[in-house]
Amino acid sequence: MYQYLSKVDSTDDLKRLNNREIQILADEIRSFLIDSVSKTGGHLASNLGVVELTLALHTVFNSPDDKIIWDVGHQAYVHKILTGRREQFSTLRQYKGLSGFPKRYESEHDHFDTGHSSTSISAAMGLATARDLNNDNHHVIAVIGDGAMTGGLAFEALNHIGQSEKDIIVILNDNEMSISPNVGGLSNYLNKIRTAPIYSKVKDDVENLISNIPAIGKTVMKTAEKAKDSIKYFFVPGVLFEELGFTYIGPIDGHNYNALYEVMNRTKNIKGPVLLHVITKKGKGYHLAEKSPDKFHGVNPFKVETGKPVYNKSTLSYSEIAGKTLVECAEKDEKIVAITAAMPSGTGLSDFANKYPNRFFDVGIAEQHAATFAAGMAAGGYKPVFAVYSTFLQRAYDQVIHDACIQNLPVTYLIDRAGLVGNDGETHHGSLDISFLSCIPNLTFLAPKDGLELRQMVKFAMDHNGPIAIRYPRGSVELENEELLNPIQVGKGEVIYEKGYDALIIALGTVNQMALDICKELEINNIFTTLVNPRFIKPIDKELITNLAKKHKRIYTIEDNAKIGGFGSQVQALLNDYKILKEVKVFALPDEFIEHGDVDILYNKLGLNCDSIIKEIKSDFNYDALSNVAITK
Amino acid sequence: MYQYLSKVDSTDDLKRLNNREIQILADEIRSFLIDSVSKTGGHLASNLGVVELTLALHTVFNSPDDKIIWDVGHQAYVHKILTGRREQFSTLRQYKGLSGFPKRYESEHDHFDTGHSSTSISAAMGLATARDLNNDNHHVIAVIGDGAMTGGLAFEALNHIGQSEKDIIVILNDNEMSISPNVGGLSNYLNKIRTAPIYSKVKDDVENLISNIPAIGKTVMKTAEKAKDSIKYFFVPGVLFEELGFTYIGPIDGHNYNALYEVMNRTKNIKGPVLLHVITKKGKGYHLAEKSPDKFHGVNPFKVETGKPVYNKSTLSYSEIAGKTLVECAEKDEKIVAITAAMPSGTGLSDFANKYPNRFFDVGIAEQHAATFAAGMAAGGYKPVFAVYSTFLQRAYDQVIHDACIQNLPVTYLIDRAGLVGNDGETHHGSLDISFLSCIPNLTFLAPKDGLELRQMVKFAMDHNGPIAIRYPRGSVELENEELLNPIQVGKGEVIYEKGYDALIIALGTVNQMALDICKELEINNIFTTLVNPRFIKPIDKELITNLAKKHKRIYTIEDNAKIGGFGSQVQALLNDYKILKEVKVFALPDEFIEHGDVDILYNKLGLNCDSIIKEIKSDFNYDALSNVAITK
Repeated sequence: MYQYLSKVDSTDDLKRLNNREIQILADEIRSFLIDSVSKTGGHLASNLGVVELTLALHTVFNSPDDKIIWDVGHQAYVHKILTGRREQFSTLRQYKGLSGFPKRYESEHDHFDTGHSSTSISAAMGLATARDLNNDNHHVIAVIGDGAMTGGLAFEALNHIGQSEKDIIVILNDNEMSISPNVGGLSNYLNKIRTAPIYSKVKDDVENLISNIPAIGKTVMKTAEKAKDSIKYFFVPGVLFEELGFTYIGPIDGHNYNALYEVMNRTKNIKGPVLLHVITKKGKGYHLAEKSPDKFHGVNPFKVETGKPVYNKSTLSYSEIAGKTLVECAEKDEKIVAITAAMPSGTGLSDFANKYPNRFFDVGIAEQHAATFAAGMAAGGYKPVFAVYSTFLQRAYDQVIHDACIQNLPVTYLIDRAGLVGNDGETHHGSLDISFLSCIPNLTFLAPKDGLELRQMVKFAMDHNGPIAIRYPRGSVELENEELLNPIQVGKGEVIYEKGYDALIIALGTVNQMALDICKELEINNIFTTLVNPRFIKPIDKELITNLAKKHKRIYTIEDNAKIGGFGSQVQALLNDYKILKEVKVFALPDEFIEHGDVDILYNKLGLNCDSIIKEIKSDFNYDALSNVAITK
Repeated sequence: MYQYLSKVDSTDDLKRLNNREIQILADEIRSFLIDSVSKTGGHLASNLGVVELTLALHTVFNSPDDKIIWDVGHQAYVHKILTGRREQFSTLRQYKGLSGFPKRYESEHDHFDTGHSSTSISAAMGLATARDLNNDNHHVIAVIGDGAMTGGLAFEALNHIGQSEKDIIVILNDNEMSISPNVGGLSNYLNKIRTAPIYSKVKDDVENLISNIPAIGKTVMKTAEKAKDSIKYFFVPGVLFEELGFTYIGPIDGHNYNALYEVMNRTKNIKGPVLLHVITKKGKGYHLAEKSPDKFHGVNPFKVETGKPVYNKSTLSYSEIAGKTLVECAEKDEKIVAITAAMPSGTGLSDFANKYPNRFFDVGIAEQHAATFAAGMAAGGYKPVFAVYSTFLQRAYDQVIHDACIQNLPVTYLIDRAGLVGNDGETHHGSLDISFLSCIPNLTFLAPKDGLELRQMVKFAMDHNGPIAIRYPRGSVELENEELLNPIQVGKGEVIYEKGYDALIIALGTVNQMALDICKELEINNIFTTLVNPRFIKPIDKELITNLAKKHKRIYTIEDNAKIGGFGSQVQALLNDYKILKEVKVFALPDEFIEHGDVDILYNKLGLNCDSIIKEIKSDFNYDALSNVAITK
């Protein structure tokens, strides 16, 4: 179907094409991407933006000897297609299919796994240092977006590399976007470079001008010399990077393959760290994505002609419920402010941003700063809400502890994407937050069973005077009515099903919906249960849980966090502390990084589904029955 | 005793002094600091460096209305002395005494608690944003060292502020040091500014020069205009900060009170974010500290005349043992490299740095980068060792998970200062690492019982092919012999005392030394024990622990980590999973932030000492005895 693309099975095949053919190939890759991602879903706009850049990288450099590291990695599709993975591309992000991110296990061309932002420069420094200690001489290249460049980790790495004189090429893929348009001083600065006229010709004029200045006394001579030095600042738009120790080259049009090819070839021979500034357009070549690159950042299957999703959802996501509730609370309380680290839409804060632009803060990809900034606002008398994905909160762990919780400041963390997230895989599952947050003193920590309870918990958090976190999963939910039978009270869980004392099931968060089905099914099998929604991970409802635990024959917990340090293990510890010496069977995530794939497939595989849990509980009661028979004999 | 200092009980008193008197006061403060810290111990050199800076801040600004935030905060002693805490200063860092860091609970002049590096600019942005939403108009000032400025969090905050046009003053206290001399591109850059000649006069000359250039055609005219623009770069040494959106002022001599006073007064009136670059000398005024500022960064009580410690230690610290062992391993294995985030001495890596300068990397205060850089080196075939304090590893939590553990890369974390650290207090205790690291898949995690075992574990780690962490406390230890009876094996603990089946005591890490005393004392009371050193937190020795648990009447665990998610809670969960339904009494740190003070005082207060534990265990057995009597009746 594709004249050139169908013949490119490796970077060697690519290198056999001439420039004209490569430009046709670029178009073919775009068609292929749009066609394929419209079927599988995935990251589209970022990949459309790096077609020529990736082609130039793989013609100028020799992967896998030369090592290209893709920051975040969601823009590595073209790289995957060119490095022998085109034919598997239809399996993208599906269970046992290609990962949506670089994976060392997937290809020798993937040198470092990415997923979270801003790691590539540090990793490149590590690989380059290893190279030099080995006396090897390949190239190490980090490709990083201007959004990811605002993450502090990237700056820490620039600072280290700048002094090192290491041969490292950092390609700044500047598209003025992370997922949303970029913010911050660095973004303004890059914008200034982008819009400045090109001085290449003018440079000669100025040098002439300076050298022809008559020497009017010693001071002026000296001055003229200094002025000559300053020409560097005048003509080098990337002075910020130059000052850190990088040779700055750019800005280059990232959709002009010939220019990229030529400049990269020159860049190869520059000693020491180089920053190559490439301007690209997110969504390039697909007009709908060019127009709304944020909407086409990560997509579900869509119709190419219209850009509309194949499946229309009629329900609200948990993110949207949290965001809408926050807007309602903010209407009544002007102290409420909202913070995101470059994800206003993903975290459901778009409405808030529109309605209260002065009380909404997008700090860029900078979770650490978001958390400490929030603590600062709380110290200033406000009620900041930091909405963040569970996996990205790992980036702000110290700030949660050190800046909010030690001072017991009223910061609310809306922890989105808790539990398994599905197709993004290992790097994006929110499977550890209960383990790493429960140990923090002063923190109150909740998980709602459904959308309605999420609403109530957000409202509860707005009245709470201390650090508080609410975790909820990716996904949509029906929001049926506005009445909550049991209001939220600190440290109080609720019984939501009570049919007998055979089994106590404690289901944390949205797994309650499955747990209720389990209870009903067990009843048909004459196993009578009590179902508890603990609501609070911390403080845990000791009274309710210990009282019920004493009454029941068997105890089970269900959650979507890792077992180690998870909620179930905390119930085990609680009962032991209370000398209630009964077995607690914990259904939770195993101690392994969990691959990508559809969430249902993954939970099924891990036995965290209705059937598996029912089977397990039934077999326990069968065992009890047999034991009883044995005893009564 | 002090002519002026004894009369300064508040910043109002300070404001009544004239410039000459303040300069005398500066000398008095230095004498007071040297005298006082030589008795209490504490941070000396950093405080000697900011005497004039602090005096200027408190004369120009009106604290507490104006809000000064001290980054890290160990340089806030002068601030404390001037804000009514002089008379309590002899209680510094002692139990129930003054904290060594700013504390909101201690004074209305402490606006944000600090302790870890690089938080002040974020916090200032939070306070300034709150101020503006409130339509207040006080000043917000962050005082941050050039070392702390390399932390990514600081950059994230600069980036956010730079675009905001907020009135915030960032004072860059540039002393070319963090604890050790600073490294990195930013440090080079600041050095260039410091050593550049002052252009103030020359500026006029160049402006003249440029304006007098004859207009030779349109191009040159344009060129001349551009050149005029470029004068900004020429005369503004802080172009890096200017490009991010700050008005740069400096560099100013930070020991010239009059200059500071004048410049700060001008700075007050500048709109938008300002970066004021102040050059100070760490240790200023005490020749020994000026000469070796790193040795006088944090000190124990010392003799002022000689600078020598009052108490000589003859033993090695755990840090030194780890460092020395690493040097030995590195002799045999050239793939071993060592990494620190600005703490080569504190983490015991000085010997390594001297012996293998090419294999040693101080990345500056940049824990995130240190961790990802380590992962990069591991991906490049090396065996990186990142030595870091437990509390600072919180900063690199995501990088440990995302960059090392997901890829199962052989990075070794030497986690120093685990458990309570004593006088530094809340922000510095290493009380959470077991809770936040145990949940990470692929990570192997150990704790040695003594110095000798630490040696063996470091060697073991160097042969381990995957991410591995070893935690050990602050403090010194005798290292008696080189023979280890039981070699380290993956997931295997050891029995170190075995006298009977009354009580099983599982003591993690160096509390084993106390646990052995407990066992011997219990024996005198006819309670016969088995003492287990589990060695591995992960993988936990299921076989050993479950087998012994079955045999013993009662089970106890002892550790210096938080109870929630700690080792004891993991033993509780393990036994429950194995249906061994026995009570496990967990001795661990409570769910609260623990204040500062001598480590022994703190552990005594928390009941984590020999006597308290013996008492508790004896009372359990008395209870058992009484119960038995009751039953046998």
